[in-house]
Amino acid sequence: MRISELSARSGAPIPTLKFYLRERLLPPGTPTGGRQAEYDERHLARVRLIHALTDVGRMRLRDVRRVLDAIDDTGRPLHEALGAAQYALASPPAHGGDDPSASAIAGELVHALRWRVRPDSPARGALEHAISRLMAAGWPVDRDELLRYGRAADALAPEEVAAVRRRTTREEAVERMVVGTVIFDAILSALRRMAQESHSADSR
Amino acid sequence: MRISELSARSGAPIPTLKFYLRERLLPPGTPTGGRQAEYDERHLARVRLIHALTDVGRMRLRDVRRVLDAIDDTGRPLHEALGAAQYALASPPAHGGDDPSASAIAGELVHALRWRVRPDSPARGALEHAISRLMAAGWPVDRDELLRYGRAADALAPEEVAAVRRRTTREEAVERMVVGTVIFDAILSALRRMAQESHSADSR
Repeated sequence: MRISELSARSGAPIPTLKFYLRERLLPPGTPTGGRQAEYDERHLARVRLIHALTDVGRMRLRDVRRVLDAIDDTGRPLHEALGAAQYALASPPAHGGDDPSASAIAGELVHALRWRVRPDSPARGALEHAISRLMAAGWPVDRDELLRYGRAADALAPEEVAAVRRRTTREEAVERMVVGTVIFDAILSALRRMAQESHSADSR
Repeated sequence: MRISELSARSGAPIPTLKFYLRERLLPPGTPTGGRQAEYDERHLARVRLIHALTDVGRMRLRDVRRVLDAIDDTGRPLHEALGAAQYALASPPAHGGDDPSASAIAGELVHALRWRVRPDSPARGALEHAISRLMAAGWPVDRDELLRYGRAADALAPEEVAAVRRRTTREEAVERMVVGTVIFDAILSALRRMAQESHSADSR
């Protein structure tokens, strides 16, 4: 397809596509003479993925590049491409200022749930920061309560991981992971508030 | 206590406390002659609540005032004060642009879960918007998947509502609700990512 059709089908304006090409986020098309080039379904999938990473995932361009590099280096397992995307998704961890016992509580929780999570996982940093804020707000940290949330996350994860792995291409798998992580955060947050509203009305 | 002690115990600088007093977010202290006034534990609880609403809940001042009004109007049930706080917590709902079928899907989900949620609930608007984004990203919306998240939220809610109701004062109940909603959103989001990392490593 011509660049105009790639634009129409992906929804990305032509100048945006030219920027992706210039920045090598999008591989060049096949030259067809003159200044024209031909693009295919793989280009379309790539544009869709870049859009998901930057729009839904709000990733910076240098993080997008890192994720795309991990996808393109087919010698690296899919797991690494997914990991690169997940790490890039996390907001930069808050350094310092966290209560040291928040880290110990997070460690206990990971242990109780028998999770395998790298110590430098940004999600782990985010958890420690949230626990620290709870402490700073003067609320006692209830380990059983945290465990209840951990179990809820644990119950949802296998299907989420399976949904990612069902995708046929690496692009699609990473896109599914990013979209699933970000949009389902919003969905779960909304559902929690609705469930609270409903249960609160019941217990009036 | 003097204003200096209220400042020390609440962590709020004196100019901030004076601003709260001027804006009538904080009720006046008992005059003790001269320009001095005496404050008590109720003032401390109120400063702590304002801090939770503005800092953790990122509420605008006019929303804080609405929540405080609902707390102070003791003729109104606690349920209404909590509702005012929860509605103020929600990001302003995205108007328009949402796929109309997102609203139908959200309605089916509420029905399947037998939830009582007002049609103008901002959380419901947030859910519809998130479903709409999922559709816009080109992903099929899996009703069973949504129901799984709904059930997870439903399982967590009764304990959350009970934790709020265990608080002895209206201030504390609202504070618990706001801190719980916001910080546990962050905790659950971090836990989901950690669970996915762990399950993804297991299924490699």
